Order: sequence, then C-alpha cells, then structure tokens
Amino acid sequence: MQPLRWNGRTLDVLDQTKLPEHEIWDTCDTYELVAEAIEKMKVRGAPAIGATAAYGVAIGAQQGRELEKGEFLAYIDGVCERLAKTRPTAVNLFWAIKRMRGLIESNSDLDVPALVDLINREAELVAEEDVRLNKTMGQNGLPLIPDNARILTHCNTGSLATVDYGTALGVIRAAQEAGKNVSVYADETRPYLQGARLTAFELHRDNIPVTVVTDSMAGYLMQQGMVDLVIVGADRIAANGDAANKIGTYSLAVLAKHHGVPFYVAAPMSTLDYEMETGAEIEIEQRSSDEVVFIGGQRMVPEGVPALHPAFDVTPHELITAIITDKGVVKHPNTDTMSRLK
Amino acid sequence: MQPLRWNGRTLDVLDQTKLPEHEIWDTCDTYELVAEAIEKMKVRGAPAIGATAAYGVAIGAQQGRELEKGEFLAYIDGVCERLAKTRPTAVNLFWAIKRMRGLIESNSDLDVPALVDLINREAELVAEEDVRLNKTMGQNGLPLIPDNARILTHCNTGSLATVDYGTALGVIRAAQEAGKNVSVYADETRPYLQGARLTAFELHRDNIPVTVVTDSMAGYLMQQGMVDLVIVGADRIAANGDAANKIGTYSLAVLAKHHGVPFYVAAPMSTLDYEMETGAEIEIEQRSSDEVVFIGGQRMVPEGVPALHPAFDVTPHELITAIITDKGVVKHPNTDTMSRLK
Repeated sequence: MQPLRWNGRTLDVLDQTKLPEHEIWDTCDTYELVAEAIEKMKVRGAPAIGATAAYGVAIGAQQGRELEKGEFLAYIDGVCERLAKTRPTAVNLFWAIKRMRGLIESNSDLDVPALVDLINREAELVAEEDVRLNKTMGQNGLPLIPDNARILTHCNTGSLATVDYGTALGVIRAAQEAGKNVSVYADETRPYLQGARLTAFELHRDNIPVTVVTDSMAGYLMQQGMVDLVIVGADRIAANGDAANKIGTYSLAVLAKHHGVPFYVAAPMSTLDYEMETGAEIEIEQRSSDEVVFIGGQRMVPEGVPALHPAFDVTPHELITAIITDKGVVKHPNTDTMSRLK
Repeated sequence: MQPLRWNGRTLDVLDQTKLPEHEIWDTCDTYELVAEAIEKMKVRGAPAIGATAAYGVAIGAQQGRELEKGEFLAYIDGVCERLAKTRPTAVNLFWAIKRMRGLIESNSDLDVPALVDLINREAELVAEEDVRLNKTMGQNGLPLIPDNARILTHCNTGSLATVDYGTALGVIRAAQEAGKNVSVYADETRPYLQGARLTAFELHRDNIPVTVVTDSMAGYLMQQGMVDLVIVGADRIAANGDAANKIGTYSLAVLAKHHGVPFYVAAPMSTLDYEMETGAEIEIEQRSSDEVVFIGGQRMVPEGVPALHPAFDVTPHELITAIITDKGVVKHPNTDTMSRLK
C-alpha cells in the first residue's frame, strides 16, 4: 500500500483521512491540488510530503510548459513558494523544494520543454531514492532490534508516510524480514488516529502482529514490562539531535527514559536540518482545534470550550538512545556525534 | 449538574455516556437496573458509584419488602453480591456495600419494613455525606493551589463523578471560590473522553476557564512550562499510598516527576483501602476493546486488529506529592504517613 501513484504527468494521492474505511484516490493535475492534498493531510508523513512536493513542482512545471523562459522561471518560483507554505514543521518538504530549485538554477540555460522534462525526472528520482533510503535505514537499524522484541510506536511511519517501506516501520519490517519475530503496540495517536487507522492497517496487511492502545496507555505498558523498545519517525531533526515528531512523541521519550526502555528515532538524511542548532528553533505547526473537538464529524468537546492542537513536539537529544538514518546509526546523538553524518 | 436524583424509592441516573450532546435520565426502579447503569458506565466516578450502589441496595430492599425476615436477609445478601460484581477497581463500591451490610447485620432484630426504611435512610446518608466530604476535601486542598495556577487534570472528578462538587475538581472549585483565578487543562481521556465530554462541560458551566487537550499533549504542556500542578482523583488507594486511577494517570505522574511539577491525588477516605498493602494488589478492570476500537459508533481500528483496554493504572506513591482527603492532606505518602489518617 503506497500513498502516491505517479502517472508521468499527474499524481494520484490516496486520501489517508478516509482510511481504513475507504480507499479513495484523488487525482492532482495542478500544483494547487497537490498543495491542498498536503494541507488537508490527505498525504502526510515527512518523507511522503517531500516526494509529493517534488511531484507538485513537476506538475507545476507541466502547467507552465507554454511559458517563455523568463516567465517560466518566475512562475516556477511561485509554484515552489505555494508548495512551501503548506505545512511548516516537516523539513523534507523544504528539502525537496530546495532540491528542485537547485536543479532549475543549475540548468537555467536549457529551454523550457527540456527543463520541464528534467524537473519531471528529478521528482521521480526523489521518490525512487526514498524507497532505497528506507530499505538502507531498515538494515542499519536491524542490530538494534532484538529477537522477539515488543515494540511501541507512535503515529504512522510506514509505507503510507513515505513513498514505500517506511522509516520506523521500515526498521520493524526489516526486523520481521530478518526473522526476528517482532510484535508491535501502535499508539492510536490522537487527534488524527494515524496509529489506529494507518499503522494497524499496514502491519496487519503485512502479518506483523499489532495491538492498538490509546496514547494514555504507554506508561502502563512500560510499567508492566510489556515494551522492549520504542521507535518513532521524525519530521525535523536539529544539528544537536533534537527531534520534532508527532505530538505525543516527547511524552513517550520521557516515559521510556523513566523505565530504562531504549528510544529510537528513524529518519532519512533529508529530515536532518543542520541549519537549526537545536530543536528550540523548530516551528511547531498549530493546527485547527476542530481536529481535536470533532471525531468522525461528531462533536466531543462542548461548544464554547477551546482545545489546543500543536501537531508536533520536540524530543531533546538526551532522551534519544540512537538516531537511525540511511547513512548510519548515531548513538547518544549530540552536536558532535550528529556532525559526523554530514 | 448532579449525576443522581433520588426520588425516595427510585433512582434517576444521568446517562453520562450521552453527555454533553444529550441529557438523558434513566429511571432505575430495580437493583438490576442500578447494577447495569454502573456496568455500562452511565454513572461512573468512584464516589458516585459508591452512592449509586448504596441506593441500589435500598431499591433492592424495597423490592423485597414483602418477604419474610429470613428470606429477606438471604435475598438482600444476593442484592449486595450482584451490585458488587459490576466493576472491580473502585473501592468505594465495596465500601458502600460493606456499610449497608454492616447496617443490616447490626439491625437484624428489626422487622422487614423497619429494616427497609433504615436501609433507605442509610443510602441517603451515604449520598449526603459525600457532598460534605468533598467540600471538606476542597478546603483541605486549598493551600496547595497557588493563585493563578494552571492545573492539568485527567478524566472527570467533578459533580458528575461524585454526588456533587467533586474530588479533584472539588479542590479546583474551592480554589476558584476562594478567588484564586485558576485555569484548567483537561486531558480528553481516551477512550471514554470523560475529560472532553464531562470535565470541560462542568467547568465551562461554572465559568472556570478550561481548555481541552489530547492525552498525548501533557508532556508538551509541561515542557513548555504551561502546567503548575496536576491534580487527579482515585479509584482505590492502597495502605502505602499507591493510587489506582483512570488509565493514563500513571503516565501523567511520570511526566510531572520529570518536570518537577507537583502531582496531587484527591479522594475521600472511602477510597482508601488499608487492606491492600500496595497498589500491586489492586485489580485493574480490563474492559472491552470495542470501547477503544469504536468512537461514536465509528470503527477506527481495522477489523482483525486487537486493542487493549485496561481501564485504570496504578501510580506508585513515590510519584505522588500529596494525597488530599477529607481527613487531611498527606504529603509524601507512604505506609507510615498514610497510617496516620486511620
């Protein structure tokens, strides 16, 4: 189950807000539709957002194929700006757009049709690379997963959060493929329920034993000795190893520390943001409180009562046992150890 | 807003599973209906369950009014047994039933009609006392609540969880009445959403500022310095101060410890179970996983995937800054300090 289908010129996006009940594919044939699919979280997960944005630039380029060179360059700049405004926290979005901008700049001598083709090909490369990197990450993480490990995870970091295979779930998949007999507790991950809806769905399909728990049960599970390790993804990792990820991740990291349970973060190098010294600089997206107030269209919070919805939190590097990337594993992440990955 | 209306012979129970959307009162005119109201969580909250069970015995006694003395005593024993089987964790249920049994035993020389009247009056006393004890607890807790305190709470411990006023919310109410200008973050409290549905509803009605957050946001709030103290209720407190309370409480206590935030438990003496040396002896009710899987009738977890639903967890006394009771406040609760309340 992959979140994106690229048709060479248009992008089909699986509407993940409707899973697992309904499998609905939206065809995006304009960059504006791509931007809206990201904003509305039809596609989510840092690496998937990166690939989607790259395809968005490619679709935008197609739309501008008839423009003259100067117009095209100004126009494609606007396309990139629009896509960059969709969501603030996941750095993969900006990484992908920066990569597309760099390609355009260094090939600005080409004519428009050739440039459009090049952009197209680059978007496909971004997507292809993501799958390869995830599999490498899975192999890199393998030594950290003991046989029969009972693994707690948060949100969704699988095929649906990437182009395919996954980051944290990629490591879990690699462990299963290596015959390690792992099992998973999936935090339901309020408010969007990505754990209940998406992670459970993916793992069940792959015959990896999965049990859903509410986010509030994590401490209980660790207290009962039912969790051997925690592994999550990331939306942006600062130069010192501080990691922004789905709201609730930080609570898990504190709980893991209290119980002496290893806490791992798995993310590709495109999630590393060496321009940010610490996690304090990472902008946390504040989403609509309606996403907390309503569940499945039903109001759960009385009218007139406000709700908060920070979509992410930042886990300080001191609480992270190791960061697993496609370029290797960093144990005890800090500015020094993280810099060696560069 | 009170959860129970006693009509002298029958009990109206506010169906809290339907709040805040619908205010539906179920009339219970048999002890079986009372038992079912507890089992189905139409009424919940340890003190409210205690009072409901006492009324259940009174209604059962009414139903048996025509029996001969010997038959009546055997029959009322069965009534008590049925009510005791409704839920295992909240000790107030057993405390109330034990109190009714004790009353019956020590008045077994009375004829049946007189005994029925006595049981009736005792149930009313249990309910009246609960309100008085909650207000005393509120006053006892007052010194622990600073002016302008931003308070995090979990589940519902207010009027709806008691006969009136509340335990932890009673302390918050007392603080507001004393002009302390408090504000509250209410954990939504999955799976039943008592925080979103009930606590927010009660506090909003009382003009105490309340903001709903998902359970996963507690760590983020503390990390951002937005929480001055945590206060929760309890369903059973062991002799050493270990406290069973709604699932997720333990995670909050660990988070509070990590952030140096005071963590308070408020409960009447009827919640103390000196027969249990530690919290390890407390039975944790495992409820149906459907209560996690379905929200508002909608399936959120894919078919074939299991979910866990421990309804409570146990917070060890080391993580509790103080236990607030109607008989006083115990700071640094342990077997020694707790024994002084007896």
